[in-house]
Amino acid sequence: MAIIVQKFGGTSVADAQKIRRAAKRVIKAVEDGFAVVVVASARGKQTDQLIADALELNPNPPKREIDQLLSTGEQQTVSLFAMALDAMGYDAISLTGSQIRIMTDSAHTKARIKSIDAKRIHKQLDKGRIVIVAGFQGIDENENITTLGRGGSDTTAVALAAALGAEECEIYTDVDGIYTADPRIFKNAAKMNQISYDEMLEMASFGAGVIYTRAVEFGKKYDIKIHVRSSSEETEGTIITHEVPQMEGVVVSGATVQKDMAKISLVGVDNVPGNAAKIFACLAKAKVVVDDIVQTEISTEKANLSFMIGISDLTAAKEAVEQIKDEVNCQDIFIREDIAEVSVIGVGMRTHYGVAEKMFGALAEAKVNIDSITTSEIRISCAVDKDQAEKALEAICVAFELDKPAQERTKHN
Amino acid sequence: MAIIVQKFGGTSVADAQKIRRAAKRVIKAVEDGFAVVVVASARGKQTDQLIADALELNPNPPKREIDQLLSTGEQQTVSLFAMALDAMGYDAISLTGSQIRIMTDSAHTKARIKSIDAKRIHKQLDKGRIVIVAGFQGIDENENITTLGRGGSDTTAVALAAALGAEECEIYTDVDGIYTADPRIFKNAAKMNQISYDEMLEMASFGAGVIYTRAVEFGKKYDIKIHVRSSSEETEGTIITHEVPQMEGVVVSGATVQKDMAKISLVGVDNVPGNAAKIFACLAKAKVVVDDIVQTEISTEKANLSFMIGISDLTAAKEAVEQIKDEVNCQDIFIREDIAEVSVIGVGMRTHYGVAEKMFGALAEAKVNIDSITTSEIRISCAVDKDQAEKALEAICVAFELDKPAQERTKHN
Repeated sequence: MAIIVQKFGGTSVADAQKIRRAAKRVIKAVEDGFAVVVVASARGKQTDQLIADALELNPNPPKREIDQLLSTGEQQTVSLFAMALDAMGYDAISLTGSQIRIMTDSAHTKARIKSIDAKRIHKQLDKGRIVIVAGFQGIDENENITTLGRGGSDTTAVALAAALGAEECEIYTDVDGIYTADPRIFKNAAKMNQISYDEMLEMASFGAGVIYTRAVEFGKKYDIKIHVRSSSEETEGTIITHEVPQMEGVVVSGATVQKDMAKISLVGVDNVPGNAAKIFACLAKAKVVVDDIVQTEISTEKANLSFMIGISDLTAAKEAVEQIKDEVNCQDIFIREDIAEVSVIGVGMRTHYGVAEKMFGALAEAKVNIDSITTSEIRISCAVDKDQAEKALEAICVAFELDKPAQERTKHN
Repeated sequence: MAIIVQKFGGTSVADAQKIRRAAKRVIKAVEDGFAVVVVASARGKQTDQLIADALELNPNPPKREIDQLLSTGEQQTVSLFAMALDAMGYDAISLTGSQIRIMTDSAHTKARIKSIDAKRIHKQLDKGRIVIVAGFQGIDENENITTLGRGGSDTTAVALAAALGAEECEIYTDVDGIYTADPRIFKNAAKMNQISYDEMLEMASFGAGVIYTRAVEFGKKYDIKIHVRSSSEETEGTIITHEVPQMEGVVVSGATVQKDMAKISLVGVDNVPGNAAKIFACLAKAKVVVDDIVQTEISTEKANLSFMIGISDLTAAKEAVEQIKDEVNCQDIFIREDIAEVSVIGVGMRTHYGVAEKMFGALAEAKVNIDSITTSEIRISCAVDKDQAEKALEAICVAFELDKPAQERTKHN
């Protein structure tokens, strides 16, 4: 019997009515002939409440105890979910991360899955039961409860799908799929039927925020078809999968904008081996996440080095570069806080020319000034004025016809 | 290093302030040189809220899922408790029933402890840590979470004290000890310094309600000193222990009253072997808890049989006896719904005469009519009119000087 994994996030199980609605989606899959494994998150604001309770007692609580506390949120949801299915006449059993031996490392609050005991789930499925698994949690080798960090339930779901050899992993959420661009900014954005893992990774880390990076990485590694779809509507969503032939005709799949960025430039750094390493080691120590590093020689002895960071890391990043400044003989530091980044993403770029040209042309026509440009194999990003970010995204979307479904666009556009 | 187990009930950990207050009691014991193991219940009304959440989804939820759900309440408390101790500068670790392998049978919602892995706790204590254990819960051999039913955290605490070879088990509660009688009825009731396990069992099952029967049974079986004391005041409470020499001078230790009782009498039952067994099998099948069975011959062929039940079981009991009536040739059934039971309890009774006489005399003087009398080795109980229950208790308390500490009473009273 084919297995399907269905993941419901916190908003999809926030109250009794929503749990019942989610349960009906599960029953639909059962009636369609699937063996179903459900992964559920903590209900609505439960996790926030527990964190508030913790901080009231300890402004800096031990991470092991945070995990012990937070894991109860998912445990509550899964037992309630099983009760709901029982009331509807279906045999269900809830299981915690501990009960199915989701073994992780001991990095509390951001643990990584090492193994899952699929036998325990198969045993329950073989009895004809629906299995409801608490997302976001596991245990380390000493039976300490761990949690997987942001998007942990997505990761649990995809990892389970891999361990069980599931047909598909459905991620139920409050949007009905992945769009070519953020519909709040470009209101004509089109829903994608399919997107490749690599494109999704670029979209996700650049602010699409529907599914978490680690879950997509897992999906890519084990080739799990991930279906992002709406928990309130019956429509098909977006399938995240490996590259398929019909994708080839499409050059640009989507566009993203990331506001709340800052750009730091170190001017006139001594161009000797090891200096860049020193600078980024210093930033890593300060836990600053760095993106879009650009280094350019300005003479045989000197180079400029710039990178983008999230605005929330700005204070930490400033301190870090001030600290390292003299050691690398940096002449000056420039900081731009009013910056945003627009990107186009598409696996088709690998083999097609003219994408950059079309993007820069669209921005020029919209009178958007480009501060700097970075590229990867499947992405081109431009740093622009924050004030012009939305206008920039819209111009790009129109240029690449992102208001239309992929098959209706001008060929090789 | 001597080990002490401290148990805090739901009202003693209801909010952050109360958790901190409880944590201070723990620290006091640490500073006094003890290795401390804490057992905590779910916070305040958490369990009630979870049950309400469950019933909203399923009027008759599977018991396994109820246990999976309810066990989160204690898990939350223990992690928060550990965080509070950490904030106060003490190294603490919280552990669930699963993490210390509190193995139980599979009787969900009323499981019984089979074994505890004391090694895991000793290992943490040896590191100088305070160990906070989730009360009320365990796991069965298939890793299903179980709960121990009413008073489960008391049972966990005493069982842990036994498994660890602890010096004492302290039960912190919202009263400051065990009284000779219910102070809400007999306002001059005296606090007892000590009480024997057997006396406490009679007191508890007859309505004293401070500590649960199973915990006292465990204490008796493994000879664990149980100290019932106030979580808000520093005063010494009452020690429940085996009989000690100084108890010998006291004949009656306390008195109880149990209202909300009913008495059922089966008149003229055929006096043949097996009839009593048939009747009580029928009641057991209807899950009616029966007390104070009295059988009296009224002729060579016929007997009367009466027993007491809680008023909440009356409907079920009525149906059960109506069902069995003809089979045992019962001539008539009398039911009294307006009945209460007053009892005096004391290990001293075993070797002293005149207790019954003094009790009946006190009731006669107070003009309380006695419906029936039952006795055990350490208890005498009289069924009386419900309206006269409080007056009856007071008369008995005065007669046995239960307003005074044991050592101040008239000798052999």
